[in-house]
Amino acid sequence: MIKVVIAYHSGYGHTRRLADAVREGAASLSIVAVQSLEVDKLDEKGWDALAAADAIVFGAPTYMGGASGAFKTFADATAKVWASLGWKDKVAGGFTCSLQMSGDKFSTLMYLVTLAMQHGMIWVGTGTMPGARAGQPDAVNRLGGWIGVMAQADNLPPEQSPPAGDLESARLYGRRIAEQVRAMRRAQ
Amino acid sequence: MIKVVIAYHSGYGHTRRLADAVREGAASLSIVAVQSLEVDKLDEKGWDALAAADAIVFGAPTYMGGASGAFKTFADATAKVWASLGWKDKVAGGFTCSLQMSGDKFSTLMYLVTLAMQHGMIWVGTGTMPGARAGQPDAVNRLGGWIGVMAQADNLPPEQSPPAGDLESARLYGRRIAEQVRAMRRAQ
Amino acid sequence: MIKVVIAYHSGYGHTRRLADAVREGAASLSIVAVQSLEVDKLDEKGWDALAAADAIVFGAPTYMGGASGAFKTFADATAKVWASLGWKDKVAGGFTCSLQMSGDKFSTLMYLVTLAMQHGMIWVGTGTMPGARAGQPDAVNRLGGWIGVMAQADNLPPEQSPPAGDLESARLYGRRIAEQVRAMRRAQ
Amino acid sequence: MIKVVIAYHSGYGHTRRLADAVREGAASLSIVAVQSLEVDKLDEKGWDALAAADAIVFGAPTYMGGASGAFKTFADATAKVWASLGWKDKVAGGFTCSLQMSGDKFSTLMYLVTLAMQHGMIWVGTGTMPGARAGQPDAVNRLGGWIGVMAQADNLPPEQSPPAGDLESARLYGRRIAEQVRAMRRAQ
Repeated sequence: MIKVVIAYHSGYGHTRRLADAVREGAASLSIVAVQSLEVDKLDEKGWDALAAADAIVFGAPTYMGGASGAFKTFADATAKVWASLGWKDKVAGGFTCSLQMSGDKFSTLMYLVTLAMQHGMIWVGTGTMPGARAGQPDAVNRLGGWIGVMAQADNLPPEQSPPAGDLESARLYGRRIAEQVRAMRRAQ
Repeated sequence: MIKVVIAYHSGYGHTRRLADAVREGAASLSIVAVQSLEVDKLDEKGWDALAAADAIVFGAPTYMGGASGAFKTFADATAKVWASLGWKDKVAGGFTCSLQMSGDKFSTLMYLVTLAMQHGMIWVGTGTMPGARAGQPDAVNRLGGWIGVMAQADNLPPEQSPPAGDLESARLYGRRIAEQVRAMRRAQ
Repeated sequence: MIKVVIAYHSGYGHTRRLADAVREGAASLSIVAVQSLEVDKLDEKGWDALAAADAIVFGAPTYMGGASGAFKTFADATAKVWASLGWKDKVAGGFTCSLQMSGDKFSTLMYLVTLAMQHGMIWVGTGTMPGARAGQPDAVNRLGGWIGVMAQADNLPPEQSPPAGDLESARLYGRRIAEQVRAMRRAQ
Repeated sequence: MIKVVIAYHSGYGHTRRLADAVREGAASLSIVAVQSLEVDKLDEKGWDALAAADAIVFGAPTYMGGASGAFKTFADATAKVWASLGWKDKVAGGFTCSLQMSGDKFSTLMYLVTLAMQHGMIWVGTGTMPGARAGQPDAVNRLGGWIGVMAQADNLPPEQSPPAGDLESARLYGRRIAEQVRAMRRAQ
């Protein structure tokens, strides 16, 4: 089995909906076992799951221009893994959510890349073309993001927002990550 | 008179519309003289205008994830000004336009900040709150950008896109830049 | 009096040495009152000092590719100030320290700019040319940074590292920030 | 055979030395055919080589805070490839060189990632730990970079600078890229 772990923080549930969609997408390959971990509640078993993962997909809301403090505190704690390059050559990906269409989501995704690169991981982006008309709520990649999934949620309960297009983007991304790992694993 | 120069590149006219709006906003202060310069057609007089400016507002479309090649070629040519810190303490700002809602606009604005900082300039962002609902075409700062103006244009003639909210964002930004320079100039 | 507040986090004391040097530089102007605040120990009085400041200089070590989790947690908490644009038009600056010469310090400084821009602040960088030979420990701006002060500390006690050039860079930066605020304040 | 193409711009020859070292590293695997292309002199055959490549390693000097104008002009021209996602799933990497130790190299590498992600490529970083003491000229990854190779060259002929550690970093990176492609190719 290929092991995909989604390591995320969600403040109000919107980022969790994305995490669930990434999970669904990755799990759509029968050879994949997916696990979601909230990084602000990580125990020893959680760290073990991360160590055993073939791919780690990082997720964080964009707060005040960057990944949330809870996510960053987790990222700092990965320094102990980095010391022995424990995550080297794992596949990495990322997703983020914020209230605005653009709103510094790029800054958060860029940070996730930076973190993954220090760990020696291999970054897989979305690989999707944006929809024909910018911003349409039902379209895949409606905001035009490529490093990872950029989603936008209104000030509504997570059941109502982010919209269908963003959730589908996350689903496709989860599947893409899993497919890439499958291809690489076959090689060994 | 306070001198504001808008130094921009526009490939298809959408970024030019933003440049015009920034100009209009800055010129709404009677003490301000504004000049727009296309950086891919810069002559000696243009460089002199930049040297004499109190503020330079940089503008570039976002192409393939960053400021256009034409803009970057201009930026490289400013190395001769940098050698003597000729633009030190001038006020700087920036704006960008692309087809997508988010679409790496942050990357372009971040580059404009990086350029301005190497020159020792002082960066003034938009200072605007985003609209109450994300993405509304008539709202100021509808995309949620703060470093500079983020605009989005559909594949339509520049007369039709970017929408009113983006142009108004650019107008307000031009005025803010001018007001900041006026405040600083009074000090001397 | 002009009020400069240095809002920083220091894990092992190296970033604190930079904060002290920024403070010394700002305080070298007789009209300036400087206060240093550790953002992981901020009480109501600290928030009041930030609200009353003319300039806020942000400082954070670079951990795992970005500003430390403790700093980011503070940044998230500033959302309540942002809601009313309470820091609009204050001058902002930033500094960071890490073990490596380059080592993602740019990522941290870029984040500090992003935070300041969301708050509508005005960013002042170092405005210094780098030394004639890259990396010389006694040279000002020995690493080539402009957005803010980039310092490098070896795995030594803070009394021994960062080197003299980095501390002098921080001193000059504190003075530059104070001078800029003085110029702007005179204007009003 | 695995095809690795190095697509670079070099202004004064220092970035070319890095390109040569990346090439040497990649070519150290017998199954790899490497080709170097100067992106400011790209002809139809060059574009064909890029289209046929399994991996593309981008290289550019850092000028005025970002990838050189010549490189960015090439990047803009890849929009025609992007329109059909012609480079999707190719492996990507990057390297840069500048006069300073840090000096906005991160900005250039981040741009190269942004470009690669829009193309749907898969990013492989250096995966190397930095040397025990920061900045030592003979050490691999002496500057602390992970997204790609960060090199520093003094104002000396390319034969004398960048130093041995940077060239060895580039060699190891070329080999790592080739090894990753080999692993992925085996899978198919």
